[in-house]
Amino acid sequence: MRDSLYTDLNVFEKFNPIVPSGYKNSAYVCLGNIDTTLQRQVLERVGKPRLVVGDTMNYWIEHKPNELKETLKCMDVLVVNESEARLLTNEPNLIKAAKQIMKLGPHIVIIKKGEHGAVLVTEETIFSAPAYPLENINDPTGAGDAFAGGFVGWLARTDDLSAENLKRAVVYGSTLASFCVEKFSVDGMKDLTYLQIQDRYRSFMQLSRFDER
Amino acid sequence: MRDSLYTDLNVFEKFNPIVPSGYKNSAYVCLGNIDTTLQRQVLERVGKPRLVVGDTMNYWIEHKPNELKETLKCMDVLVVNESEARLLTNEPNLIKAAKQIMKLGPHIVIIKKGEHGAVLVTEETIFSAPAYPLENINDPTGAGDAFAGGFVGWLARTDDLSAENLKRAVVYGSTLASFCVEKFSVDGMKDLTYLQIQDRYRSFMQLSRFDER
Repeated sequence: MRDSLYTDLNVFEKFNPIVPSGYKNSAYVCLGNIDTTLQRQVLERVGKPRLVVGDTMNYWIEHKPNELKETLKCMDVLVVNESEARLLTNEPNLIKAAKQIMKLGPHIVIIKKGEHGAVLVTEETIFSAPAYPLENINDPTGAGDAFAGGFVGWLARTDDLSAENLKRAVVYGSTLASFCVEKFSVDGMKDLTYLQIQDRYRSFMQLSRFDER
Repeated sequence: MRDSLYTDLNVFEKFNPIVPSGYKNSAYVCLGNIDTTLQRQVLERVGKPRLVVGDTMNYWIEHKPNELKETLKCMDVLVVNESEARLLTNEPNLIKAAKQIMKLGPHIVIIKKGEHGAVLVTEETIFSAPAYPLENINDPTGAGDAFAGGFVGWLARTDDLSAENLKRAVVYGSTLASFCVEKFSVDGMKDLTYLQIQDRYRSFMQLSRFDER
């Protein structure tokens, strides 16, 4: 259905992304999974960001592979789900897939695994973040975008790209995604306070912490 | 294939489990996923263990559900994989499934998720352990048994059933499973040293640790 929507309306070919002047010097840019040509146009219209985070999806991987490869060269971080990582690299093993993606441009790869959490792969680090163990998942729509927003939001807020802070950003991404799926539409997000986010971040710590004896 | 093997040979009906005298007073007992009636027979032939850990599988869940329910009443810990947990409870959500299993007897439930790690659920705790990010998985045979062995082995060695030590035991289970699948057959396990196990345990800590800013 998504495929025919894109092909029939051809909306993305006609869309001209205007970047409001207030956003033109953004240090942190997050490119949603629109047409990869548009992603690059958006990027050309902002200054020199400190970090470019990007998403993509099956449609662009399959229908615009060469365009996508050009865009990947401009990304510092690629955030994709398991099936997209496999489709992009033709590699079933996710760690190998992440390492292949790193040869295409992004030096940081995050693979989202839905109810199984997310994995962050860089040159030096592999970090595995759990998903929040929700008993009630009402609407998974937007979980990936909530993740990317939480991830890049934390980095923009802290302006710290150290390995330790990238891990925290992944957990903030998972935190926001967990609120997103708990309720219908944007209901889980729209009245969220920073205190609630911090509380859940600490629950993530409890959830995955163990020590040596 | 497994089904027909069990039905045709009917091996388990004829098998009489003899527990060697040296094992009769074991404090920690781990019941593999044999016929659930045999699991209970084994248990009757040991004294009063401090902890009974058990496994089961689709065949017994489907063909001996009532017998299995009797056995579950005797288990402190049930270790199952995702699909077994769902089959046993008819509940797709794993946290809800674990809580339903806890009503059947075991007060500790561990759900193994293969390449996605394992989750431990008790009355007070939910703990999510990552899987080790292996690039080469050569033979998954025996991973579940290696996990159970690592888990109960650590508890037997330490004789400590605190929440913190249960988490460590889950990570030792994942550690042993990671060595198991790395090589063919038992090759990943047979020459393993305690030092190698400790090293990988520490890698698991690195892999999943993050802090607050």
